[in-house]
Amino acid sequence: MEMAQIGATEKGGVCRLALTDLDRDGRDLFIKWCKDAGCTITVDQMGNIFARRPGKNNDLPPIMTGSHLDTQPTGGKFDGVYGVLAGVEVLRTLNDYGVETEAPVEVAVWTNEEGSRFAPAMVASGVFAGVFDLAYGLSRADLDGKTMGQELTRIGYAGSEPVGQHPVGAYFEAHIEQGPILEHETRTIGVVTHAQGQRWYEITLTGQEAHAGPTPMPIRKDALVGAAKIVTEVNRIGMSLQPFGRSTVGLMQVSPNSRNTIPGSVFMTVDFRNPNEEALTGMDRDLRAFTDKLARDSGLTIEVTQIWHSPVVTFHDKCVGAVRSATRRLGYSNMEIVSGAGHDACYINRVAPTGMIFIPCEDGISHNEVENATPDDCAAGGNVLLHAMIEAANA
Amino acid sequence: MEMAQIGATEKGGVCRLALTDLDRDGRDLFIKWCKDAGCTITVDQMGNIFARRPGKNNDLPPIMTGSHLDTQPTGGKFDGVYGVLAGVEVLRTLNDYGVETEAPVEVAVWTNEEGSRFAPAMVASGVFAGVFDLAYGLSRADLDGKTMGQELTRIGYAGSEPVGQHPVGAYFEAHIEQGPILEHETRTIGVVTHAQGQRWYEITLTGQEAHAGPTPMPIRKDALVGAAKIVTEVNRIGMSLQPFGRSTVGLMQVSPNSRNTIPGSVFMTVDFRNPNEEALTGMDRDLRAFTDKLARDSGLTIEVTQIWHSPVVTFHDKCVGAVRSATRRLGYSNMEIVSGAGHDACYINRVAPTGMIFIPCEDGISHNEVENATPDDCAAGGNVLLHAMIEAANA
Ligand SMILES: NC(=O)NCCC(=O)O
Ligand SMILES: NC(=O)NCCC(=O)O
Repeated sequence: MEMAQIGATEKGGVCRLALTDLDRDGRDLFIKWCKDAGCTITVDQMGNIFARRPGKNNDLPPIMTGSHLDTQPTGGKFDGVYGVLAGVEVLRTLNDYGVETEAPVEVAVWTNEEGSRFAPAMVASGVFAGVFDLAYGLSRADLDGKTMGQELTRIGYAGSEPVGQHPVGAYFEAHIEQGPILEHETRTIGVVTHAQGQRWYEITLTGQEAHAGPTPMPIRKDALVGAAKIVTEVNRIGMSLQPFGRSTVGLMQVSPNSRNTIPGSVFMTVDFRNPNEEALTGMDRDLRAFTDKLARDSGLTIEVTQIWHSPVVTFHDKCVGAVRSATRRLGYSNMEIVSGAGHDACYINRVAPTGMIFIPCEDGISHNEVENATPDDCAAGGNVLLHAMIEAANA
Repeated sequence: MEMAQIGATEKGGVCRLALTDLDRDGRDLFIKWCKDAGCTITVDQMGNIFARRPGKNNDLPPIMTGSHLDTQPTGGKFDGVYGVLAGVEVLRTLNDYGVETEAPVEVAVWTNEEGSRFAPAMVASGVFAGVFDLAYGLSRADLDGKTMGQELTRIGYAGSEPVGQHPVGAYFEAHIEQGPILEHETRTIGVVTHAQGQRWYEITLTGQEAHAGPTPMPIRKDALVGAAKIVTEVNRIGMSLQPFGRSTVGLMQVSPNSRNTIPGSVFMTVDFRNPNEEALTGMDRDLRAFTDKLARDSGLTIEVTQIWHSPVVTFHDKCVGAVRSATRRLGYSNMEIVSGAGHDACYINRVAPTGMIFIPCEDGISHNEVENATPDDCAAGGNVLLHAMIEAANA
């Protein structure tokens, strides 16, 4: 696949971080494909791209699909890009069969869904949905201090359309599951009813740099020893809430990061998830109780900031119904499923009826270069998407 | 001080990592000072610099002092550079008073003593003493893969003198204590009798990257959760050996270091110290037993490599005696002390009679930008050095 070559890694995955040159190349290719399919293109101020195929009645709000082209540093060939390619396939199939829909059909590419280079995740669909304001979105910075606004301008994707002023009649997103359930249950299609809630944190521990040799153990203020306790506690919190809780420290930076200097400070992140909002609140409470006590006992200064809360999402009845009935009509084995990951659909659901279609991925593995999905499952998800969109566009 | 301005940090410290442009600037300044004091300069293939003040009998091996100009990333104005400046003061004082010594006197600057940019520490004095071979020394690489050989050439300090072919009659090194003992005991001079042993390790944990949201806790292979357990155990090992054991994880790199990806691998270091060689061996045994069990229990692959062992050092009777008698003659309060840090003197002690002089540092803090020592204590250490060297040079 042409898109998977943009940022291809040695291990067969893709590293195409948001708003890098590679992200620009991916966007350019998407636009070329959509123009070849006869679409018109608009780009908004957050760099979200919309490719429009006119309907019979262009006063109707478009039926939209889409996903994202950015990846994790150790990303695969399916997370996000599958939903975009499925959307392009919908456009091409409608063309091939000369189908005219009542409402226009659009395919969207949302900026920085992953939340890896810039936190939080889904920030541009969040601005679109009014969850964040534009200034917040544009000011998100990577670890080197470069902002999304600067990088959008640099790669030529700071569009002019005001964010969120784009009407949406309904939104459908196809995605790999990124977890093991569909494979384990041997179902082809996941009819996504909910997405679990998530809270993201940034924690900074400050101790005191000192020499690893002469400094007695009892008087040390070792920020990494404190950080290690937090990693262990975060893991315990998730483990204690099986089968539902998820808890991860994905990022840690140690300073000064020198073998024979006691670490003076550590920056780390926490990612909590739960399909139950109250349980998610409990995870927050446990973390804060732990870090408060740790600060008292250790003499470290510990700052805990929740930088993001994406509450539990219930997708729209009508769209979930459209996905379910298309799946049944097409005869695919299926089940209802709760999304373990966040998706742009979670935010679009706030401003338009929204539904999602999951397909299995090998061993449930995602955010990994070995990520894989079968051609048959990819085609099945695309078929369901096509049928659900035609139904919605002609309703 | 002019030297402290080279790499000066906002917090009043110095960041002058080995073989950077700043290190070159420091070396250039040292050479200028020594030439102004009438010395001749030689540089060996490891970039060690020797400034020579002739004696009456230049067939005698020189009486040498010295230390290092490189610092930690969060280094102070005294660690290393104090010993070099004390040496330059010795040269100038001998000149000012027109003293002619029997043997020549030399001041050395050893390359990459800190072991921060390039591991292990004291690598260039180690090559000088025959502990490492030249190829090993030149091939030490920083985290970006740049080698000492490349960087020596780049900054113009790849000298021509074969390493270790430089005769040394006796070696004395003045240094701040870098620990709290002299201050606590209110003594001006530490007569250093030993240095504790140390072992350095590199550990790589390999798990599996996966999505922080949908991936169930029980099937994860989270390399950072494993690394956190090692940090906690390393700390426990040192704490269990009070008052003597020291254990530190100073450096950790998490991959892919993305907030919502379960860490697939972690690279970390361990620094163990003990003044008792058997106890140090016990620390090694405890670490390996722990990581073996952790690998079995967690499904992580854990590679533990000891990259350095610097055994307990006993300094030379005659040199320790020379420091002790100079201290007494000059009337400074003093005590015997074991060095908690490694020093170039530890390796030079293998090829020439060697002794060390410690002075107190504020709150025992080193490898920190707030590192401090009083002018009086600095002068006292310099005086002891001068007297010990004159005695040795005329013996
Ligand atoms: N689909 C996906 O990987 N989204 C990234 C945001 C998240 O971590 O849930
Ligand atoms: N003196 C000093 O800080 N040496 C660095 C080597 C060590 O870690 O002991």
